[in-house]
Amino acid sequence: MTSPASSSGIVRADGRAPDELRPVTITRGWLDAAEGSVLVEFGGTRVLCAASFTEGVPRWKKGSGEGWVTAEYAMLPRATSTRSDRESVKGRVGGRTHEISRLVGRSLRAVVDVAALGENTIVLDCDVLQADGGTRTAAITGAYVALADAVAWGQRHGHVKGGRPVLTDSVSAVSVGIIDGVPMLDLPYVEDVRADTDMNVVVTGSGTFVEVQGTAEHAPFDRAELDVLLDLAVAGNARLAEIQRAALAQELGR
Amino acid sequence: MTSPASSSGIVRADGRAPDELRPVTITRGWLDAAEGSVLVEFGGTRVLCAASFTEGVPRWKKGSGEGWVTAEYAMLPRATSTRSDRESVKGRVGGRTHEISRLVGRSLRAVVDVAALGENTIVLDCDVLQADGGTRTAAITGAYVALADAVAWGQRHGHVKGGRPVLTDSVSAVSVGIIDGVPMLDLPYVEDVRADTDMNVVVTGSGTFVEVQGTAEHAPFDRAELDVLLDLAVAGNARLAEIQRAALAQELGR
Amino acid sequence: MTSPASSSGIVRADGRAPDELRPVTITRGWLDAAEGSVLVEFGGTRVLCAASFTEGVPRWKKGSGEGWVTAEYAMLPRATSTRSDRESVKGRVGGRTHEISRLVGRSLRAVVDVAALGENTIVLDCDVLQADGGTRTAAITGAYVALADAVAWGQRHGHVKGGRPVLTDSVSAVSVGIIDGVPMLDLPYVEDVRADTDMNVVVTGSGTFVEVQGTAEHAPFDRAELDVLLDLAVAGNARLAEIQRAALAQELGR
Amino acid sequence: MTSPASSSGIVRADGRAPDELRPVTITRGWLDAAEGSVLVEFGGTRVLCAASFTEGVPRWKKGSGEGWVTAEYAMLPRATSTRSDRESVKGRVGGRTHEISRLVGRSLRAVVDVAALGENTIVLDCDVLQADGGTRTAAITGAYVALADAVAWGQRHGHVKGGRPVLTDSVSAVSVGIIDGVPMLDLPYVEDVRADTDMNVVVTGSGTFVEVQGTAEHAPFDRAELDVLLDLAVAGNARLAEIQRAALAQELGR
Amino acid sequence: MTSPASSSGIVRADGRAPDELRPVTITRGWLDAAEGSVLVEFGGTRVLCAASFTEGVPRWKKGSGEGWVTAEYAMLPRATSTRSDRESVKGRVGGRTHEISRLVGRSLRAVVDVAALGENTIVLDCDVLQADGGTRTAAITGAYVALADAVAWGQRHGHVKGGRPVLTDSVSAVSVGIIDGVPMLDLPYVEDVRADTDMNVVVTGSGTFVEVQGTAEHAPFDRAELDVLLDLAVAGNARLAEIQRAALAQELGR
Amino acid sequence: MTSPASSSGIVRADGRAPDELRPVTITRGWLDAAEGSVLVEFGGTRVLCAASFTEGVPRWKKGSGEGWVTAEYAMLPRATSTRSDRESVKGRVGGRTHEISRLVGRSLRAVVDVAALGENTIVLDCDVLQADGGTRTAAITGAYVALADAVAWGQRHGHVKGGRPVLTDSVSAVSVGIIDGVPMLDLPYVEDVRADTDMNVVVTGSGTFVEVQGTAEHAPFDRAELDVLLDLAVAGNARLAEIQRAALAQELGR
Repeated sequence: MTSPASSSGIVRADGRAPDELRPVTITRGWLDAAEGSVLVEFGGTRVLCAASFTEGVPRWKKGSGEGWVTAEYAMLPRATSTRSDRESVKGRVGGRTHEISRLVGRSLRAVVDVAALGENTIVLDCDVLQADGGTRTAAITGAYVALADAVAWGQRHGHVKGGRPVLTDSVSAVSVGIIDGVPMLDLPYVEDVRADTDMNVVVTGSGTFVEVQGTAEHAPFDRAELDVLLDLAVAGNARLAEIQRAALAQELGR
Repeated sequence: MTSPASSSGIVRADGRAPDELRPVTITRGWLDAAEGSVLVEFGGTRVLCAASFTEGVPRWKKGSGEGWVTAEYAMLPRATSTRSDRESVKGRVGGRTHEISRLVGRSLRAVVDVAALGENTIVLDCDVLQADGGTRTAAITGAYVALADAVAWGQRHGHVKGGRPVLTDSVSAVSVGIIDGVPMLDLPYVEDVRADTDMNVVVTGSGTFVEVQGTAEHAPFDRAELDVLLDLAVAGNARLAEIQRAALAQELGR
Repeated sequence: MTSPASSSGIVRADGRAPDELRPVTITRGWLDAAEGSVLVEFGGTRVLCAASFTEGVPRWKKGSGEGWVTAEYAMLPRATSTRSDRESVKGRVGGRTHEISRLVGRSLRAVVDVAALGENTIVLDCDVLQADGGTRTAAITGAYVALADAVAWGQRHGHVKGGRPVLTDSVSAVSVGIIDGVPMLDLPYVEDVRADTDMNVVVTGSGTFVEVQGTAEHAPFDRAELDVLLDLAVAGNARLAEIQRAALAQELGR
Repeated sequence: MTSPASSSGIVRADGRAPDELRPVTITRGWLDAAEGSVLVEFGGTRVLCAASFTEGVPRWKKGSGEGWVTAEYAMLPRATSTRSDRESVKGRVGGRTHEISRLVGRSLRAVVDVAALGENTIVLDCDVLQADGGTRTAAITGAYVALADAVAWGQRHGHVKGGRPVLTDSVSAVSVGIIDGVPMLDLPYVEDVRADTDMNVVVTGSGTFVEVQGTAEHAPFDRAELDVLLDLAVAGNARLAEIQRAALAQELGR
Repeated sequence: MTSPASSSGIVRADGRAPDELRPVTITRGWLDAAEGSVLVEFGGTRVLCAASFTEGVPRWKKGSGEGWVTAEYAMLPRATSTRSDRESVKGRVGGRTHEISRLVGRSLRAVVDVAALGENTIVLDCDVLQADGGTRTAAITGAYVALADAVAWGQRHGHVKGGRPVLTDSVSAVSVGIIDGVPMLDLPYVEDVRADTDMNVVVTGSGTFVEVQGTAEHAPFDRAELDVLLDLAVAGNARLAEIQRAALAQELGR
Repeated sequence: MTSPASSSGIVRADGRAPDELRPVTITRGWLDAAEGSVLVEFGGTRVLCAASFTEGVPRWKKGSGEGWVTAEYAMLPRATSTRSDRESVKGRVGGRTHEISRLVGRSLRAVVDVAALGENTIVLDCDVLQADGGTRTAAITGAYVALADAVAWGQRHGHVKGGRPVLTDSVSAVSVGIIDGVPMLDLPYVEDVRADTDMNVVVTGSGTFVEVQGTAEHAPFDRAELDVLLDLAVAGNARLAEIQRAALAQELGR
């Protein structure tokens, strides 16, 4: 295993150092009607995140005084290099889709104070328009910003009452992996398929872990590899948190 | 019924004359991997049209020497002003979705010479990212351009052989309707819901009809109304054909 | 294009003149239990139309004071020349079925005063027992008569109150098409598959349009062709309206 | 328990003696295209039975030299006194439908020599147009006649080769039940719902049993009751076999 | 047909006499949480029966003062000698599963006094862990014992009020069949596939019939065969009723 | 956070030390027909793991020379303290089920040399009979043993050729979590619902990681907590690997 330090002189196919993120863009207000919406790009990966704010909660939460935040992830048929069949046409949502939807929802709920939200529901729709690796991490990173806008909308329109902050922290995610012995940050598709180990790490703005999902794709990994991947991911998420903050600092002109 | 002539002085909520299209934008090459792709905008309506070219045809066309062109239309959950449930989650494709998918496919096939295409398949995915009326007409108009790019791709890569043109004409579509007695072109959502009669008209570049679908939403319509709506639609489609031609004339820089 | 006038001397495979309907039979009261029921035949096409009257409306219409009329169209597996799989067994309703169900529902609602109906629901089930072209137009024509009987049942049993008429007009439908350059009325299956252009036209008893659905099956059509098809359809529907009136004038012996 | 002998003087609501069938009508050739088709009526119960003959067998029977006979039973939504939802719309076939489809298929296969049929498939579609009790027994009784016509069609057209008879016997079915202590034959709906015990008995033309399905609806039954019900059913089926023979003896005029 | 008397000297593959049951084991309290649970074994057939007691009834029974008992039968994918696909993955419950679930439910309801149960629901889940013939009869026999435990639980916890017995009798089931002319009791898989006639008979503890389901698998059967099979089944069920009584007489140690 | 050392004197509700597994039992050969089968128990959690060996591979692996191993996880309706609806009846497999099925499959494939397996498929069915926390970790641990038996079966019967070992290592899994600040191993349901952080760790017999899935249920966790949980999990899996080895060392008496 080689050190990920940029000083190693290793350069990736797209010209990045091993510990460097792809260009990340967060465009707020991409949809006219949604209470929060973001087009997030991690390099060629493009995800449209729409946050829908509605008063009221599902039946099983009624009367609890608490709100509910959930997410649905999906991919357009031609987001990928070859076309996939639509899940609506197949009549069932696939396992991977389910799994990522659940991950996005859990990640966002980790930074939501549902009591402060009150009996309101926010649904995050994360639709991948173009996929080039890291779609779930881009979805979480973008969805947080859309969520923040939807919460602000709810406060502005008087649906969220009380001065308490609804969001207790920010949250972002990034992928890391070991390719030919080199730990690397934010894998595009060509790297992702070659990684021996692939890990998605969800981290709060204050640097604590929300989810750690590491998978040995080709060969089991040892503790030292795990440690260096976690270091890379924490550093990458710190950079994403800054980008989120910068995006939210801008005036949303509409 | 008032004459649709602009000289009538009638001005619509968005400032247009009754016989004026919304601003129409066609952005080619919006996706890196698709053989043809277009982001088409009719005002606030935004549809991503991806054309996937594959060699071979469905089993029932094998050995016919002919190709196949089909389309699938869908809407993102938050394309509309309030969120709709996903058809993949509901486990079934709704009637409206089916109906529009079939319309888009039929409209494109009307200008395809399937023998010239050879045993190749082109699937058009039209995903509505934002809906503000006229999503099916924008889908047809944009899908034609994506189809043209996919055909060119197939010719460039030697999958489509013989010098014969595959596309016998261009095709576009526009909605027309009568609102408070005034025939109007290209209805946004606010006008669409108020229209007494609503018609979608699919026309070739040479001005012949591919589909005429007129529906009395609130009150049956007479022959005179039908005639004036058809005139409006033919004129609007002529303008769309120009916009398609202009878009296809540009260099696709990738 | 040849003139459709019978004087042209053109005779169709079944001996009809181009502007002649097939023999149309409407048998009321075909079912013992349904509030209205009709077996309608357009030549070999045989559709059983059952109208079910129930008090109350779907949740989204509750408290509106208005009623609801809807329709479901389906085909028995061996209605056609070769057997089709059942949609119940396939687990999903096909696009064509959905599309026609929606068309039948819209056509009937165009002549219903939902306020006069009051908060009652009428469901029209149109099941094709034998298909020989024009199943959707036979369904609309027969369903109107079943609907009229169900409305009368609701009035007789005191569910529909107030003296106002519920039905503002009658409605019927017929297909027209151009075959080998000759415009023809009411196409059986053998003609339907050969038509260049195929149009279904839904017209009220007073002669106004409810739906115009024209499709270029093989070649786009021009305005002159459209005009002559509309003339044929209007005349055919006028004859169907007479047949409906005659059927409803008879005593329903049960 | 009272003796079912007509001499008991018991008269049923519809005027029949306890051991009397309802009027049974078998109309052959009801559909133009099906290789065999029958409209069968047991009183108010009306079932359309269509037999579809196709060359070839399902994959798991290929090369066996044997044919395959199967059946599908279904009910139109308004066959019953109140409307039921369509199974196609619900997206799943109900348990009762499945159960009866399987019963009809098994009953017919009991009289088919699949080797004599050769590698051909006959599908029986039994669609209940109007239900007034005994729909499954009418379906079996009518389907046998449609099957016989389809077999004859296969022989006439040279698909079924060899002189051996394909049908080894005829088969019919009837319901029996005990109502207020009186065993009765062929129950209409009003009797069916009141029966303590309900039995459907499928019998060949030569008087042997194919299926005996007895259910204690309200109270378990003893051996003596079982015996008298079986006697009634055997006698009723003997009468049905005669009616089937008479129907098949007529010239099928098409 | 040979007499089933053991004195005939016929010995089956597993060493049993024709009128002998396989070893039957009923293990109560197999699950910690279920209100009643039984692992029932008929030779190699192993079914886990879980009774779930809940207060309240389905909407259509609310206010009736009566309870509801229902059952669901299913088979694990590898219960059989070759693996079957899961019905959950296929997305639909098969006809055989539906049919058996309905049979189990009806059989149990035949011995339940729903008024004495009060507005409570008991669901019986019968999951076949290993299948070696007779899974439905083992399911009914085991489910009765689980039901008895769940009723007792409901009485102990005060949900079932009034001293009246809820269970009016016991109920069990066994299969019988004719193999090479010999009537046999309780068929394992190897015998079941060879049987000419196969019958499942559900009998109460007092010896009356709840269900008689006889099917001619290969050849129709006559009245004499039917009679001898019924005798065998009644005797076998009498033995099962004893085994059920003995199982319920034991202390349930938890 | 307290140290997990047993010397801390902390005793759990079931009497265990924080770093102690529940009693683990592995019963091989629980099913007669499956090529490998195990009933695995982690305390009250009971999972039946069946390995089905079939020659051949799915189409997309044909001709690759490689085998395929996959898994399906499911839960019986009354495995839990209150009954859940069946996924087969709901008509769709839930997200959690999908996610765990994929995890089990990936975990097993990490120790399979698919080239050594040759073009054979092994499906692992893991059905939870009783759930008391840690069902996915018990499933992986038991499935490995069933897989080993199925591989041995394939070798004994000549389907797996060549002397190379198919299994490159063993694999097991255990849950860990932090409850009231104390890191604990192998959580039963009562602990699982109270855990702030919950982690499932899949480890090979040689101590390397296959999957690390950590989730902040209530509060994000820091690196120190992550490290101590990983230590606990590695030690627990080492103990599970011994139990697997001991189980496989026994003679499988059939």
